[in-house]
Amino acid sequence: MLDVLNDEYYMSLALEMAAKAAGQTGINPVVGCVVVKEGRIVGIGTHLKRGEGHAEVHALKMAGAEAEGATVYVTLEPCSHHGKTPPCCERIIEAKASRVVVAAADPNPVVSGRGIERLRENGIVVDVGLLADKARLMNEKFNKYITTKLPFVTLKTASTLDGKIAAETGHSKWVTGAAAREQTHTLRHQHDAIMVGIGTALADDPMLTTRAVVPAIHPVRIIVDSKLRLPLSAKVVTDRSAPTIVLTTQGSDEAKKRQLEEAGVTVIPCGEGAEVDLRAAMKELGGREIGSILLEGGGKLNGAMLDAGLIDKMVLFFAPKLIGGDQAPVSFSFPGRPKMSDAIVLEHVQVEMAGDDICVTGYPRYEAQHDG
Amino acid sequence: MLDVLNDEYYMSLALEMAAKAAGQTGINPVVGCVVVKEGRIVGIGTHLKRGEGHAEVHALKMAGAEAEGATVYVTLEPCSHHGKTPPCCERIIEAKASRVVVAAADPNPVVSGRGIERLRENGIVVDVGLLADKARLMNEKFNKYITTKLPFVTLKTASTLDGKIAAETGHSKWVTGAAAREQTHTLRHQHDAIMVGIGTALADDPMLTTRAVVPAIHPVRIIVDSKLRLPLSAKVVTDRSAPTIVLTTQGSDEAKKRQLEEAGVTVIPCGEGAEVDLRAAMKELGGREIGSILLEGGGKLNGAMLDAGLIDKMVLFFAPKLIGGDQAPVSFSFPGRPKMSDAIVLEHVQVEMAGDDICVTGYPRYEAQHDG
Repeated sequence: MLDVLNDEYYMSLALEMAAKAAGQTGINPVVGCVVVKEGRIVGIGTHLKRGEGHAEVHALKMAGAEAEGATVYVTLEPCSHHGKTPPCCERIIEAKASRVVVAAADPNPVVSGRGIERLRENGIVVDVGLLADKARLMNEKFNKYITTKLPFVTLKTASTLDGKIAAETGHSKWVTGAAAREQTHTLRHQHDAIMVGIGTALADDPMLTTRAVVPAIHPVRIIVDSKLRLPLSAKVVTDRSAPTIVLTTQGSDEAKKRQLEEAGVTVIPCGEGAEVDLRAAMKELGGREIGSILLEGGGKLNGAMLDAGLIDKMVLFFAPKLIGGDQAPVSFSFPGRPKMSDAIVLEHVQVEMAGDDICVTGYPRYEAQHDG
Repeated sequence: MLDVLNDEYYMSLALEMAAKAAGQTGINPVVGCVVVKEGRIVGIGTHLKRGEGHAEVHALKMAGAEAEGATVYVTLEPCSHHGKTPPCCERIIEAKASRVVVAAADPNPVVSGRGIERLRENGIVVDVGLLADKARLMNEKFNKYITTKLPFVTLKTASTLDGKIAAETGHSKWVTGAAAREQTHTLRHQHDAIMVGIGTALADDPMLTTRAVVPAIHPVRIIVDSKLRLPLSAKVVTDRSAPTIVLTTQGSDEAKKRQLEEAGVTVIPCGEGAEVDLRAAMKELGGREIGSILLEGGGKLNGAMLDAGLIDKMVLFFAPKLIGGDQAPVSFSFPGRPKMSDAIVLEHVQVEMAGDDICVTGYPRYEAQHDG
């Protein structure tokens, strides 16, 4: 397709730069910025790491004196408050840009619009909303975390078309093909943490690291382990390539808790019941600045998270095969809804191929959201 | 897309005419024919009903004297033998056509190529293979039946993403949406028979007729009923809009068999075991000129048919929702293969949307085929 030179031409570049930084900004959003002066790109920037320069700062620095009278394309409303860095609005005003094009307003209702207002007060033309849907979508994790302080949870499964994640014997290598597995490791890179249940940890003794064909970021490893059955010899304990958090209950064994802590594991008691209170766990994790979790559980944990309304997005890989076995492990196990009309519906469903496998993505709609 | 006037231009029309007649030719293939003379279409024809005119006969009749020196585009090799009608080759030779373009050769190895040879012997130029894949695909049911005398079995399921065909309570209205249901009724129209298990027949008392928005053909109804539990009051017995066949075992109750037969049902004992011998059943049905079956079973029948290697094609509708319930009925129940690498793989997988639902189609590859 032929390109058309217009605002979208530059904003698309800003969005693409932002998208590729997904996973490396922690609880910060991904943001891209392009500065254009008299028909030439004079500066580009992306927010690369929390606590370091914002996209606008990088781009304006590259532009230097050329920023005067320039148009600044930025995927997210420039900040107007002093955070870990000075506000980007002031930097744009200082640079004497004449126009700012913003894709998405700040999702935080408390500060949304303030940056735009501040720029306009200083005589800068501001246009808002170009490619806003795309800009919001790429910060869906940030948008949830900044408004709720709860992590955005993406469930990933890999099953046969009859919903099995392993044979009845437990054999599971491999359900899906190389393409789906590469996408899974990319998802790990793009989330702050990865979460599994103790069943998976005991059965497979997984590393839960990100193994892409290029070096990648390892997510924090979270094990849901109500009775602290995780052995000290587990790879997630002995391997130090990423921090490990164990979620457990108030009543779990104190001595085992100390042993795990001495081995470098963070143990968080969540609730006084026999099982980890998953809702309380999400609050705890959010409080520790875990803004996004990739859930790769077995049927029980996936089902419990779904039943509690804690899954925000699903990425379901289906291998085009059938393995059978009524007792073979499945992707989801949770108390059945009595009527078909009570089922949890996925919205914004997309289907695509991942090699030979089928990938279904969507966003579960829970009753509470439905009624609200 | 702009059309290009060439052989494909006319063959595409012949294929489209053939495709739309799917379901109304019984065990005969669907065939389309276009006769073209000096840049004008002078005749078109489709095989409409078994025992009546072939596509070429209809098209040549329409063309009349214009057929002399014309090109005949036909989707399947013209027949050279006297069947229910005289051979089409002779009709083409009589009409003095100068060229014949054939999409697919006859799938029957015994007669394949004979029609083409006969035409060439009479000085007619014959080109074979244009759009052959498409032509073969639209006669996949015929191609199996003519070479094996066994019906082509298409399995159709409609489940949630967690593989359930109903809630644990049995509630199932509706799993999929209107678009998927309309496609299902179209599949019924396009198959000689529809097959369900006695469990489905007892639970739902279905009519198993074709309910499209236009009048449609009702398939023969087949109930797999090892112990002859089908009540005489069942709709498939009392309703006469299509014949009903009950597959049972040698040992089933003779009195009940007679009652069903008196009510107009055909009862076929298949094997001496406790369960219907499905492989023997397919032979019986093929012998009764049932060339294609749409299998709409529950998990048990679907699983047994799959496990016996008797399913040729799958059309799996997935509604984008999750209902839960470890005991809720599933699409497939069959003894689990011990290793993931033993799973039954689908080939030529296609994924498309049917309204809000996901439709996966594919062809199971069984070990025997794999090794052969």
